[in-house]
Amino acid sequence: MKINNTHYRTVWYDTAKHVVSMIDQIKLPFEFEIVELKNYKETAEAIRNMTVRGAGAIGATAGFAMAQAFVSCSNTDELKAAKAFIEATRPTAVNLFYATQKVFEAGQKGVGDAIEMAQNIADEDAEFCRLIGEHGNQLIQKDNKILTHCNAGWLAFVDYGSALSPIYAAHKAGKNPFVYVDETRPRGQGARLTAFELFHNEVEHRVIADNAAGFYMSKKQVDMVITGADRITANGDVANKIGTLEKAILAREFDIPFYVAAPFSTFDFDTSCGDDIIIEERGDEELLCHEGLDEKNNLCTIRMASPGSKGLNPAFDVTPAKYITAFITDRGIIKPSELKNYR
Amino acid sequence: MKINNTHYRTVWYDTAKHVVSMIDQIKLPFEFEIVELKNYKETAEAIRNMTVRGAGAIGATAGFAMAQAFVSCSNTDELKAAKAFIEATRPTAVNLFYATQKVFEAGQKGVGDAIEMAQNIADEDAEFCRLIGEHGNQLIQKDNKILTHCNAGWLAFVDYGSALSPIYAAHKAGKNPFVYVDETRPRGQGARLTAFELFHNEVEHRVIADNAAGFYMSKKQVDMVITGADRITANGDVANKIGTLEKAILAREFDIPFYVAAPFSTFDFDTSCGDDIIIEERGDEELLCHEGLDEKNNLCTIRMASPGSKGLNPAFDVTPAKYITAFITDRGIIKPSELKNYR
Repeated sequence: MKINNTHYRTVWYDTAKHVVSMIDQIKLPFEFEIVELKNYKETAEAIRNMTVRGAGAIGATAGFAMAQAFVSCSNTDELKAAKAFIEATRPTAVNLFYATQKVFEAGQKGVGDAIEMAQNIADEDAEFCRLIGEHGNQLIQKDNKILTHCNAGWLAFVDYGSALSPIYAAHKAGKNPFVYVDETRPRGQGARLTAFELFHNEVEHRVIADNAAGFYMSKKQVDMVITGADRITANGDVANKIGTLEKAILAREFDIPFYVAAPFSTFDFDTSCGDDIIIEERGDEELLCHEGLDEKNNLCTIRMASPGSKGLNPAFDVTPAKYITAFITDRGIIKPSELKNYR
Repeated sequence: MKINNTHYRTVWYDTAKHVVSMIDQIKLPFEFEIVELKNYKETAEAIRNMTVRGAGAIGATAGFAMAQAFVSCSNTDELKAAKAFIEATRPTAVNLFYATQKVFEAGQKGVGDAIEMAQNIADEDAEFCRLIGEHGNQLIQKDNKILTHCNAGWLAFVDYGSALSPIYAAHKAGKNPFVYVDETRPRGQGARLTAFELFHNEVEHRVIADNAAGFYMSKKQVDMVITGADRITANGDVANKIGTLEKAILAREFDIPFYVAAPFSTFDFDTSCGDDIIIEERGDEELLCHEGLDEKNNLCTIRMASPGSKGLNPAFDVTPAKYITAFITDRGIIKPSELKNYR
């Protein structure tokens, strides 16, 4: 997708120099910078410190890191240690383990095969997201107003994104979609990342307070909701950013279709339902404080909440399948009731 | 109520010096300061620049300003000009016009009568709020967990508050209430003012992202919701801070009682329903930027959202009566269906 009218992927590999390049997502949206990582250790550190984030982008980066290890390591013990080093960066990211394993296996034939496999994983991620866009675009009519929560855009993948991919496809098709961007407190990924993406790709949008979603729905000014998903269980329950559940309940109350867009790999058929998912509680400083640009354009973190008070900060919630109209996947549009055919 | 273990009202009148004193609410929660206003012009300016805010507190302040005018003005023309000056500060505040008119009429007998009337208006506001607390306390059981939105606490009135008054009463009665404080974006009155009030009055509470309310409701960890109201129409629809509608819909979805606490004067029987209320759209800088303390403890405003993107900022929404369990008023608990008996 585009930034300042230039096409970028979130992460890519230079086969001549064996350097991994990526957009520094820690600095977004206030600074746009590409970082170059010269070896697997630097690339693994970029996963750990969240220079790159999002399931698809992490998977692709881990694959590239593993390929870099084949360039620098001289024996199997070193390669195994490198694999373990990369996998320790974000131990809950399923895509990460998939990528390191695939590249490790391919690399047994040679360095070139490792690099080719890593490139394939990145390309496949982009292609799955492109297909999500193609399928989802069929649900969007001209001038539709679409609400989205958090950032499930191309910055979380290699390209296109999940929730935003149908919107980009509709925009490209001249359907002139308008996007309500939920700010997505506490971390503000909507106001920071989704707004950044849509601005640079010239999709009409406005940031709204999470509190205003119900208002626009009640005024019949929202045609559909599309969000991403962190994990989808066998029965169709969706774990996603905190607040997704609220938007799903509101959408049903006002008869607005609620779609969840995700690559098919997001389905976890080994987990029967959302009750089995443990919700991560994060530190309350994410809620009580926030980062932004001060009046002199310096990055600055401020305390927003009353001094002395504490907060509670659940990072995710689970949206039961009954609130979900359909899943938009690379394999097509799937209703929750149809999921049993895919197990 | 208490700040640093001392009892305060939000605004009060010194009958010896004819000075109006008030808590400077612009500086809350980061600084606590009392400002002294020597004449009606200074007091009116404090209403205009929102040193004082909230329906009850504005009404009381306007009454005191009108009383100050009787101290300094030498003829009826000057008094009428003073009345117009005070009324021009916040032309949509109904309580303001009620107070200036009552004090203006009383003052025809003498300055002492004007001051007495202004004092009565302030005392009446505090008493109505105390009664809201007394009635609302009956709805609260020991160890109840209560969610509130925005700030309908004592800072918005002369004392006690509306939504928070039952909570203060329950706390005083030893019921140990716990309060989920909705941050209440965009302006953060929950995280700033409600948290400040509860902290200083030693009521157990945690600030949560507006997005997390549905999560705690879904986990059966919220026993009731209590909010305030800006206006309640004849059929029981409630205009209140943006996001109130969302919380009401979520509460009904999870079978949680949703109460609206307000002095009886908040009922507007001349407006038949909420459809007739025009929603104020405010500037998007309230959403895209935020004020807080930087790392050196200086007040600082930062840009939170991605540069270039714009926002939409509806200030209020309307919650239909069907979502409201009951109103907590100084006249007792009133169900929406019983409102017709009060017209």
